[in-house]
Amino acid sequence: MNSIDMSRRGFLKGAAVATASMMASAAANAGIPASSVKSYDETFDVVIIGSGFAGMACALKAGRAGLKVLMLEKMPVVGGNSAICGGNVACPVNPVQKAQGIKDSKELFIADCMKDGLGINYPDLLGTIADRCNDTIKMVVDCGCEFVPNHMLFEGGHSVPRSYEIKAGSGSGYIRPMHAELKKIPNVVIRTRAKFDDFIMGEDGSVQGVTYRRNYRFNAKLVSDDLENKSGKTVTVRATKGVMLAAGGFSRDIWFRQTQDPRVVPTTDSTNQPGATAGVLIKALGIGAAPVQLCWLQFLPYCNPREKGFGVSVNFTNHACMDLGMVVDRKTGKRFMDEHAGRKIKSDALFKVIGTDENYPIAICDDAIVKAINPSFVKLPLELGTVKKFNTLEELADHFKINKAPFLEEVKRFNGFVKAGDDKDFHRILKFNKGLDVSKPPFYGIECCPKIHHTMGGVKINTHAQVISAVTHQPIKGLYAGGEVVGGVHGASRLGTVAVIDALTFGMIAGEQFAAMK
Amino acid sequence: MNSIDMSRRGFLKGAAVATASMMASAAANAGIPASSVKSYDETFDVVIIGSGFAGMACALKAGRAGLKVLMLEKMPVVGGNSAICGGNVACPVNPVQKAQGIKDSKELFIADCMKDGLGINYPDLLGTIADRCNDTIKMVVDCGCEFVPNHMLFEGGHSVPRSYEIKAGSGSGYIRPMHAELKKIPNVVIRTRAKFDDFIMGEDGSVQGVTYRRNYRFNAKLVSDDLENKSGKTVTVRATKGVMLAAGGFSRDIWFRQTQDPRVVPTTDSTNQPGATAGVLIKALGIGAAPVQLCWLQFLPYCNPREKGFGVSVNFTNHACMDLGMVVDRKTGKRFMDEHAGRKIKSDALFKVIGTDENYPIAICDDAIVKAINPSFVKLPLELGTVKKFNTLEELADHFKINKAPFLEEVKRFNGFVKAGDDKDFHRILKFNKGLDVSKPPFYGIECCPKIHHTMGGVKINTHAQVISAVTHQPIKGLYAGGEVVGGVHGASRLGTVAVIDALTFGMIAGEQFAAMK
Repeated sequence: MNSIDMSRRGFLKGAAVATASMMASAAANAGIPASSVKSYDETFDVVIIGSGFAGMACALKAGRAGLKVLMLEKMPVVGGNSAICGGNVACPVNPVQKAQGIKDSKELFIADCMKDGLGINYPDLLGTIADRCNDTIKMVVDCGCEFVPNHMLFEGGHSVPRSYEIKAGSGSGYIRPMHAELKKIPNVVIRTRAKFDDFIMGEDGSVQGVTYRRNYRFNAKLVSDDLENKSGKTVTVRATKGVMLAAGGFSRDIWFRQTQDPRVVPTTDSTNQPGATAGVLIKALGIGAAPVQLCWLQFLPYCNPREKGFGVSVNFTNHACMDLGMVVDRKTGKRFMDEHAGRKIKSDALFKVIGTDENYPIAICDDAIVKAINPSFVKLPLELGTVKKFNTLEELADHFKINKAPFLEEVKRFNGFVKAGDDKDFHRILKFNKGLDVSKPPFYGIECCPKIHHTMGGVKINTHAQVISAVTHQPIKGLYAGGEVVGGVHGASRLGTVAVIDALTFGMIAGEQFAAMK
Repeated sequence: MNSIDMSRRGFLKGAAVATASMMASAAANAGIPASSVKSYDETFDVVIIGSGFAGMACALKAGRAGLKVLMLEKMPVVGGNSAICGGNVACPVNPVQKAQGIKDSKELFIADCMKDGLGINYPDLLGTIADRCNDTIKMVVDCGCEFVPNHMLFEGGHSVPRSYEIKAGSGSGYIRPMHAELKKIPNVVIRTRAKFDDFIMGEDGSVQGVTYRRNYRFNAKLVSDDLENKSGKTVTVRATKGVMLAAGGFSRDIWFRQTQDPRVVPTTDSTNQPGATAGVLIKALGIGAAPVQLCWLQFLPYCNPREKGFGVSVNFTNHACMDLGMVVDRKTGKRFMDEHAGRKIKSDALFKVIGTDENYPIAICDDAIVKAINPSFVKLPLELGTVKKFNTLEELADHFKINKAPFLEEVKRFNGFVKAGDDKDFHRILKFNKGLDVSKPPFYGIECCPKIHHTMGGVKINTHAQVISAVTHQPIKGLYAGGEVVGGVHGASRLGTVAVIDALTFGMIAGEQFAAMK
């Protein structure tokens, strides 16, 4: 019965016999044993995988504490998806709120997040964000980030205005000044086109370092860049204090996202940058990181299938057609959802209609609505042709191949609901329509579809940003994580502006942890 | 840059130097390299982990084909959770339906499942079940399973009657005859108290065998039996054709289930047997098996917190109070959900009320309702004291500490809804109440809570029951799976009677795959 020695420790005491062949970990999925590494090419205190909010915050804290930091970014530029996101940031119980008499609390913030998250969020991680968010904001302001002064955004799903508006209008408003600040710290090294490959693991299950490839050329044309791209030259790097995972989400990982939600097909577009793949996450699962809520993908329900990524038509579809107009199924000519519901409810309804035959619903409004909204919302989409304009509803129906007779009936029915202030079909709140319906020509129409915006799930961390093992139920020594690669903060669906504070805060905390190590 | 040789294949050609120390896989999470196994204690064609529906179906097919089969069961008896489940089984498009003129189709079955599963089910796996279910039923009937003749159950969520009712009244109606049949096959060896420990992995990433412990003594008192229990003696077994995972779900895994859904606390009860833990699943993830939809746990919403497991009060709470009576929050005295909604909707609502302070809602009915239901539903719960009987609503409120004044108002309001046939608060269908409300003393009350009933997620398989790797996107050679350890079949929430056909069918398919190997 003792044909193999089950004591791993026993084995490793005799590690003189261990050779590089130990690397041939049976599953090609459990990291590289440190004992198989003859020598390291580089040694740093901290290795950070990813250069978005979480990675930069970690690098700042660790770098300023004098630690030797290596930040790896596989893409040609730093910032990842953080650089192109909206950039506004939630900060419950902040000085601007206080000055404006807005009453907020940690408990209210957690409750708001858990409502949208369907109750499966990790309350301890949300509590940590609430406790530390003012420190986080101070950190980025000290770097030179600029917010619209004395102003709080009232974002969807939040009970009170609690979000700072970034002046730059996108996440680049953090990435640029933080990057500039990092470049001033001589002990921080940032490498782009540097692709993480694997973890180097100590015999005690700790992360000792990583292998990565320099001069990597990401190739967005591959089905799976992670699997197929062999570019670059391998480097082994020792991380004496630890490794930080700040690799983001997997909204652009064709295979892994469909494994989690089969409704998502290869052609399902995403608002994310093409580098948002699951490679680092899968490697982390391979060394035991506990998977948390991987199957909750968040979609933006007001995207357009004829333009790539975020596109230019989102504001029109959202604010003209979904706030005030209507959305119909071409096949039935009828409405099928509360057009003003939350992201998840609407995306689920849209997916059902779209089915497998790309039956994109049509979002519709009229001339009076277009005159009531920000003119910039319709100008570019009309020029680019995603939004079409028609003299009659019949022409609109013909163009989009909408089942005409029931559609014309449905518009009348909807207009009646607006007049009565009572949506008998979907209980939509119509009081803010102020009489606007779909009756004044010309009429406007646009196809709509959900696009993947954020992946909720990831590895499990504790409030110190330590990654937790499903095998031991304990922290994996030397492994930290923050941002979209982590699961649990947002539960099933996240509120706008919470991803930014999440990534910055847990990045900061990981950096503090490294700085506090002896 | 070449301090380590990145070619795993290159290494392994020089495997003469590889010693048992290769087993010291860095992460303690990637299986045992076959090259480290000096000799195997046993050799079989097929090793099956688990002895429920999927395991037994696989053993039957492989065993009857003449293969040497080893079935491992960690508990003292075979059958796992399958033996104690309800046991009725869906079979779309079957001869009884045909004889009774019930029109069913593969497409309707898939649509029904996907409706409850929130659309994230794997349609190909559901299609396979529909294609093969009559073969599955034949297999179990040939073993001696008995169904109520010429009878189809009309189960919740199904559009037509399509489920056979097992005569025995539970899953033991399959396990007993299948076990008896397996015992007749000399080349099938069944071992109880035999606990799977790890996979033995070939250098090509294939599963070559497993290690397990004989004379294992499962200890339900441990927080994690998988982690803490060191009993038994290790055996290495070679599986020349492959390993079948039939290890069930993780409804009783305190740590892993809370990682997926933090609302579930250690004291959250489950209707499952205590051996339903995540150990095998986590080991499978460690060798690269793709995780699918792990965070969808299904709860039965009409359980009782004062009795363990499934208990005796479920029918009373379900059919008396939720079908006909009402459920209130003690703190507010008010209703908070459509008591007749689906399992998921009700469980979510109950969790919200229960919160962290065990504020169990009270399910209530009156004498007229009790006289209208099956008398057996109330007899035992009254005797055991889970259901309490009161002369007045005031006494009921006092006993359960319900906020009395609003509660008495709420009962009146509810009775008014029944009379009007219109539930203005939760849009519950009241037409089947036929006038029954909560007005005739004595009144009955019982605490209610959801208990974990089934875990939807698991490893990814294809329609041949092959486990798919997240690392390679290809089947893991030599690894098969079926039943609750697999994810994707049920999506977010499964319909009753579909778990049985799922497990039996993919077990059968895995057995056929082994039998077809040369």
